[in-house]
Amino acid sequence: MIKIYGKNCVYAAIHAKSKLETVFVCEDILRKDNNIINLLKDKGIKYQIVNKKYMDSEFGDGNQGYGAHRTDYKIYDMDSLNILPKERGRVLILDGIQDPHNLGAIIRSVDAFGYDMIILPKNNSVSVNKTVAHISTGAIEYTKIMYVNSLLTVINKLKDMGYWICGTDASGDTLSSNIDKSLNLAVIIGSEGFGMSKTLVKASDFLITIPMKGHVNSLNASVSAGIVLHDLMAN
Amino acid sequence: MIKIYGKNCVYAAIHAKSKLETVFVCEDILRKDNNIINLLKDKGIKYQIVNKKYMDSEFGDGNQGYGAHRTDYKIYDMDSLNILPKERGRVLILDGIQDPHNLGAIIRSVDAFGYDMIILPKNNSVSVNKTVAHISTGAIEYTKIMYVNSLLTVINKLKDMGYWICGTDASGDTLSSNIDKSLNLAVIIGSEGFGMSKTLVKASDFLITIPMKGHVNSLNASVSAGIVLHDLMAN
Repeated sequence: MIKIYGKNCVYAAIHAKSKLETVFVCEDILRKDNNIINLLKDKGIKYQIVNKKYMDSEFGDGNQGYGAHRTDYKIYDMDSLNILPKERGRVLILDGIQDPHNLGAIIRSVDAFGYDMIILPKNNSVSVNKTVAHISTGAIEYTKIMYVNSLLTVINKLKDMGYWICGTDASGDTLSSNIDKSLNLAVIIGSEGFGMSKTLVKASDFLITIPMKGHVNSLNASVSAGIVLHDLMAN
Repeated sequence: MIKIYGKNCVYAAIHAKSKLETVFVCEDILRKDNNIINLLKDKGIKYQIVNKKYMDSEFGDGNQGYGAHRTDYKIYDMDSLNILPKERGRVLILDGIQDPHNLGAIIRSVDAFGYDMIILPKNNSVSVNKTVAHISTGAIEYTKIMYVNSLLTVINKLKDMGYWICGTDASGDTLSSNIDKSLNLAVIIGSEGFGMSKTLVKASDFLITIPMKGHVNSLNASVSAGIVLHDLMAN
């Protein structure tokens, strides 16, 4: 079970027909939102109306009067690569993202730009927790997430399936505008502290760079991901 | 005084010749980093070597053995608009950003893409605190930040100075690729919960939209900012 909270997250879960054990609605918000109870009745979802003290102790900061106990998200494994599209497929590979805020923001971008899947390594990555779900503002309900033992193995399988591997690195020599958007593409974003591992840099077909002109010259990982996912969105 | 911490932040402050009252170095990192003490001596910066317990109690999580007491950041006011360039100027206006993580990530993008200034309203915005400084990983040392009473007043002054105002809104009809990059541009990014205020939407010369194709169709504010700042970087 995972706790989700916040108006957008709970509404997204209801509309996405997610498996919700119980929805909790704070009595204080019923004056402002007279849809929620009817919607829950219509959908046949079990709910409880509770007071603010209960909401805050169960769901913590940022609940806005909405919370739910949701069954865990479906996590895909490597056997599910065959659900990827054969044409103009889009995959995002995250090489060691640690910060749940970053993963949540990245999930929003993955949904917004129509990517088919996020792939993360089982070791050395943040897991899908309530912070990730909350920061995704509901986008997680529509995002396929796969955890694998070895990113290199999955990259080789993706190559066999006709995907081109687009690493991102300051040493890169390719602008994303130069990549053919009719291809199947798998984008790799490195970790917050260390970027992409050397093994994955070597395994990349293209190394994309984002032109910069400042002093520090590095971007937040979710911002880098957003820029590249936007630039390589399938048209 | 503001506390800054983390290796990148402290090194950036030293190299940017920021006013540092005292730098604190954890004894544990001296084995790995034998530059720091010589650098501090060279620059004539007061420092203390302390133990891990002291570091953690003074600077909290994420200090990595590096911390400093820094004089407050210089905050600009509206009288400083005249320092903006007359040609290809770039300003970012943040209409009510609340989250220090977002502001820190945005400051990294502002530095990376060579923007000249960030402008925020005094009311209804996060202030520059230690979380913002930390998340900016040192980029804050190179970023001019202005707080103003009224964004509308500053927008009208910018127009008089020959700046074009680029709002960003889902209802927008302009792609950033269609904007002439030789202009002076001021980009507006709305708040996390509510986007741009109607007054600022009306005051915009262009309303930029980021094409999306997902279910939730909204991006994290720092991701939106990164995409638009990148697209409109002066060349």
